[in-house]
Amino acid sequence: MADDIKALFFDVFGTLVDWRSSIARETDAILKPRGIAIDAHAFADAWRGEYGPSMEEVRSGRLPFCKLDVLHRHNLERVLPRFGITGLPEDVMVQLNLAWHRLDAWPDVTRGLARLRRKFQIAPVSNGNISLMVALARRNDIHWDAILGAEVAGDYKPKPGVYLAACAAFDLAPAQCMMVAAHPFDLAAAAPLGLRTGYIARPNERGPGKGDNPPTTPVDVTATSAEDLADQLGA
Amino acid sequence: MADDIKALFFDVFGTLVDWRSSIARETDAILKPRGIAIDAHAFADAWRGEYGPSMEEVRSGRLPFCKLDVLHRHNLERVLPRFGITGLPEDVMVQLNLAWHRLDAWPDVTRGLARLRRKFQIAPVSNGNISLMVALARRNDIHWDAILGAEVAGDYKPKPGVYLAACAAFDLAPAQCMMVAAHPFDLAAAAPLGLRTGYIARPNERGPGKGDNPPTTPVDVTATSAEDLADQLGA
Repeated sequence: MADDIKALFFDVFGTLVDWRSSIARETDAILKPRGIAIDAHAFADAWRGEYGPSMEEVRSGRLPFCKLDVLHRHNLERVLPRFGITGLPEDVMVQLNLAWHRLDAWPDVTRGLARLRRKFQIAPVSNGNISLMVALARRNDIHWDAILGAEVAGDYKPKPGVYLAACAAFDLAPAQCMMVAAHPFDLAAAAPLGLRTGYIARPNERGPGKGDNPPTTPVDVTATSAEDLADQLGA
Repeated sequence: MADDIKALFFDVFGTLVDWRSSIARETDAILKPRGIAIDAHAFADAWRGEYGPSMEEVRSGRLPFCKLDVLHRHNLERVLPRFGITGLPEDVMVQLNLAWHRLDAWPDVTRGLARLRRKFQIAPVSNGNISLMVALARRNDIHWDAILGAEVAGDYKPKPGVYLAACAAFDLAPAQCMMVAAHPFDLAAAAPLGLRTGYIARPNERGPGKGDNPPTTPVDVTATSAEDLADQLGA
């Protein structure tokens, strides 16, 4: 199978980067000096909790496509008052919203992707926007061949067009591409389109022991890390 | 000025890669073994000659956007008979068309861009499609932050939307971006939109001594190579 695959497409939030710890750290770093003390992990969870519903507004056609930074900002404004925070200056709001550009990769990711790139074309197929993906790649020393995903497709996963636009951008048939994610819903959306699927377990994504359950639908590869995926794909 | 600039956008054909020598070499490599001998440089010139007019069909709205590989194929079919070549098998036509994915960079490019990337975000803003840009980057060891340009914008340079889409993808104002090209028309299109401009002279693009004349409109930087550009921008 690995020899037929030409490109690997990666989910990013949760699969490659530890958004929860990073958002909590960034939030504390911004709010504590202003005398604001909150449960930063609960705040990260609440902010992330608005992620799916906000994209659904776009997927359903009720809102035109806008980049994820815009949805994150909208969601931030909804979540802050729940933590008793109001009236932050605009520059602080901008800085806080860009916390999503400062997420750290899981420890296996930089080396694993560098190995995988020797054998495959690699691209993020994330719901994050291009500038966000660029910032995360620079921060975590990832060399993508291209930034694909929601902003290039003009819609959000798991809409089929996002996966198919990525295959088309690389001039590849879906069967020559593998979607890699820690989230079964992502793989379950890609598989019927003909893409291969790779599951990387991230059991601590939403806190210790709080990751997605393994897929209940068949996947082509199940890995414990990006380096394990490289091992299994012969990269 | 250099400290205000956050991103450099590069024209590719001619500015970074020597399309003429490369297309001639690839054409010879494919046709000679089939007993077909032509003036491969004249063939490269003729094929490239169809480039502008074919994009104009899209820019004018007479044709919907399609990627450059498709236009190259269309143009190839127009040009081959002029050299007395007909009836090539489909696999040879595909291989020949993908000659544009196998272009060599000018000797200063790989090192120059590596230096520039330490200080700036860098992306191609080319009329070439994403897969073509990926192939050239891999061949010439270029680490782009993202692939921007025509396919992401859905139109061809010098339409303003292509430059502005690149700025928007990076969340930057035009004044924070520099368009770099060997072609004055490209810089003349970017400058009125607010982008900074960098000219790299490629006096041999269309053969010895046959490059574009230097710009007659003001540019911010005039360089002799990507490494010279890095010197001048302090990278």
